[in-house]
Amino acid sequence: MLSKADIKYIKSLQIKKYRKQEQCFVVEGAKTVQELLQSDFVVKKVIGTNEFLSKNPVADRTEVVEVSEKVLEGIGEFQSNNAVIAIAEMRSNKKVEINADEFALVLDDIRDPGNLGTIIRTADWYGIQHIIASEETADFYNPKVISATMGSFTRVQIFYTDLVSYLRPYQQPIFGAFLEGKNIHEVKFGSGGLIVIGNESRGISDAVKQFVTDKITIPRFGQAESLNAAIATAVICDNVRRSR
Amino acid sequence: MLSKADIKYIKSLQIKKYRKQEQCFVVEGAKTVQELLQSDFVVKKVIGTNEFLSKNPVADRTEVVEVSEKVLEGIGEFQSNNAVIAIAEMRSNKKVEINADEFALVLDDIRDPGNLGTIIRTADWYGIQHIIASEETADFYNPKVISATMGSFTRVQIFYTDLVSYLRPYQQPIFGAFLEGKNIHEVKFGSGGLIVIGNESRGISDAVKQFVTDKITIPRFGQAESLNAAIATAVICDNVRRSR
Repeated sequence: MLSKADIKYIKSLQIKKYRKQEQCFVVEGAKTVQELLQSDFVVKKVIGTNEFLSKNPVADRTEVVEVSEKVLEGIGEFQSNNAVIAIAEMRSNKKVEINADEFALVLDDIRDPGNLGTIIRTADWYGIQHIIASEETADFYNPKVISATMGSFTRVQIFYTDLVSYLRPYQQPIFGAFLEGKNIHEVKFGSGGLIVIGNESRGISDAVKQFVTDKITIPRFGQAESLNAAIATAVICDNVRRSR
Repeated sequence: MLSKADIKYIKSLQIKKYRKQEQCFVVEGAKTVQELLQSDFVVKKVIGTNEFLSKNPVADRTEVVEVSEKVLEGIGEFQSNNAVIAIAEMRSNKKVEINADEFALVLDDIRDPGNLGTIIRTADWYGIQHIIASEETADFYNPKVISATMGSFTRVQIFYTDLVSYLRPYQQPIFGAFLEGKNIHEVKFGSGGLIVIGNESRGISDAVKQFVTDKITIPRFGQAESLNAAIATAVICDNVRRSR
């Protein structure tokens, strides 16, 4: 049975301040929790319906609470979730090592959680395992981010840091999209480097722009002024993979 | 001055049933309303702050009401809007003619308004002007759709219809993404045709699948199970433009 304190605790984890304090986050929905259970995240508690728990026996590795669908709908961020909620430990924010033959993303203030989640899912599709994010970027453990990743949060690692300090000593190519850049259909991306994705409204900041070694452009054939940040990420990743 | 009846009317237009009845919709935010005013949409009313109205004089072509930022924030769908709301007439749902040398999108139940808006913005970037949508697809005039298009709703036309009846007599190639399709990096897309985008959860429906003449696949390099529908649209459009 779920206590009032449990419910209060789960709800508190929707807020970044409490996630940081508790170093825990919430994962919702059958498919995403299944991905969580298959990952190396430490799972503290699984709160599921009888149907979910009978198909996904996890009592040997974590605390389990059985609840009704109605109770579940009341405690999560998403009302459409009628199967399971899990509480897991956050990973520590440690510097990710980028190999010379690897592409990684740099997020320069991606503020929308849906965009961040979609970027993580897209990165996972294109085999990109590491993301370096500015401290203003949306929180990886925000329930909206976790949900939009569709399970890819278990396979992509993020490191929040000051981008200027991170980029200054970096020796490989740093790609960034600008209107005056080289057409990505013609760019040779080589075997590794960083791809900077700019903020939804203002693009790549001046502070980060100075470190971009290769300005690139997604060619436009119509009249939209810009592309959504997650869309731009996908188109660039597809071209990177194609040119390798 | 804005009457209570005006406010009630604007709020009612957030609901599809009332939009259909009134054949009107709401556009919010400075940039998007500017795009609306430059388009051929019939604008019925512009409700803006003194700042917006002094920079965008429109009293010669539509009814204008000046309000404070505080009033604006209370009446729209988006609290972040502090400049302007406009009411415009919907276009009639008429069949779009697709030329032989043109690519158009077919949306097979895209239910998420954010996805639909991003697809419209992406189509506009890639010079795609026409979209054929199933009747289950989100409503083009939903405020969340209009907002996510970032003004592109003024340049892309949509036709809601029964896809089976629409596709049956169609003679050009019909492309659709399936796991077993041909790698889009190697497909010759030719000079025109339809590109079917499947529903967020189940992909392309069986009813529509039978009309797909060219099965294509976005190559995967990592482990995500699928891509977001708007992301898939963008990657396919980029490859179509590249191969033409």
